[in-house]
Amino acid sequence: MNYPNGIKKKSIISNISHKNRGMTLENDLNETNEYYREIDKAYIYKKPTPIKITKVDYPSRDKAVIKEAFFTIPSTTDYNGVYNGKYIDFEAKETKNNTSFPLANIHSHQIEHIKNIYNHQGIVFIIIRFTNLNETFLLLGKDFLDFINNNNRKSIPITFFREKAYLIKENYRPRLDYLKIIDKIIGGI
Amino acid sequence: MNYPNGIKKKSIISNISHKNRGMTLENDLNETNEYYREIDKAYIYKKPTPIKITKVDYPSRDKAVIKEAFFTIPSTTDYNGVYNGKYIDFEAKETKNNTSFPLANIHSHQIEHIKNIYNHQGIVFIIIRFTNLNETFLLLGKDFLDFINNNNRKSIPITFFREKAYLIKENYRPRLDYLKIIDKIIGGI
Repeated sequence: MNYPNGIKKKSIISNISHKNRGMTLENDLNETNEYYREIDKAYIYKKPTPIKITKVDYPSRDKAVIKEAFFTIPSTTDYNGVYNGKYIDFEAKETKNNTSFPLANIHSHQIEHIKNIYNHQGIVFIIIRFTNLNETFLLLGKDFLDFINNNNRKSIPITFFREKAYLIKENYRPRLDYLKIIDKIIGGI
Repeated sequence: MNYPNGIKKKSIISNISHKNRGMTLENDLNETNEYYREIDKAYIYKKPTPIKITKVDYPSRDKAVIKEAFFTIPSTTDYNGVYNGKYIDFEAKETKNNTSFPLANIHSHQIEHIKNIYNHQGIVFIIIRFTNLNETFLLLGKDFLDFINNNNRKSIPITFFREKAYLIKENYRPRLDYLKIIDKIIGGI
């Protein structure tokens, strides 16, 4: 659990259900991004959880304690940063579904954001983990948008991922070397 | 006050002291970034305020209410995004000081972050407003780092800004057209 970036009930639940591996996708990506920073390869961070603060107490002049706040729907994706001067942007999601990824997991604002970043030459993608199958895919924003534009389905079948996306192998360090895939696709940026 | 992105006592105080203009630098930048998105020029967002959540209640299965949380020191800058495929990153600060900008306003982690982004070919800068003088400057990361490396001072004199930084004129819309300056410096990216 990554307290500084906020906790959600579903993260806690997924932590428990993944105890066979002990790691959530978020943890794997945070460790990977930390590794990229350590080796000075890329500077990519998870954004803080967006919240709406409704009550703050000031027990003393310099201290503020948030006494009431709510999680809000994000208007952008969770991760972004720089890699060789290029803008990198992605969303990461886990699903317990074995046959498809439900699109309800990605908000319409986020789809719009992915489209904008793609149109503005950012390197944008989604990372989807099928937790029960232990398969983690990187799907380029372009292919994700193509699917949405050409289908009325409410979920992306795993066959689409197996055909169009890139499987990210799990390693000890970095846990999920997704930039290796970006290097291959983009061709030595 | 920008509730969704978190409130701080100092923001409230500065809002009051700026009632002659009615706008804080943060509001001006949020409006400017909104304008850039509207005209499809750039996608730059303020990151949510980083907080450490220590207590969450679940009044029902789908609802979560944060009951205790604290503001934490950010490890990155507040704003980032994409402009023509390039990574844009900046920090923005106001000061009531008339002669210099106190460096205590920028955390050491943020200085380290600016250095990393600069070394990785990101377009990185700081936007500093001297509120009493109504002067807002854009100082490139390179010049900011040069100052820090060559001085033991705890503040950057306004003369340094007037010499090395770029004055951002205030307009109706966009409020602070900082990308116009980036265009000029970078030369048609």
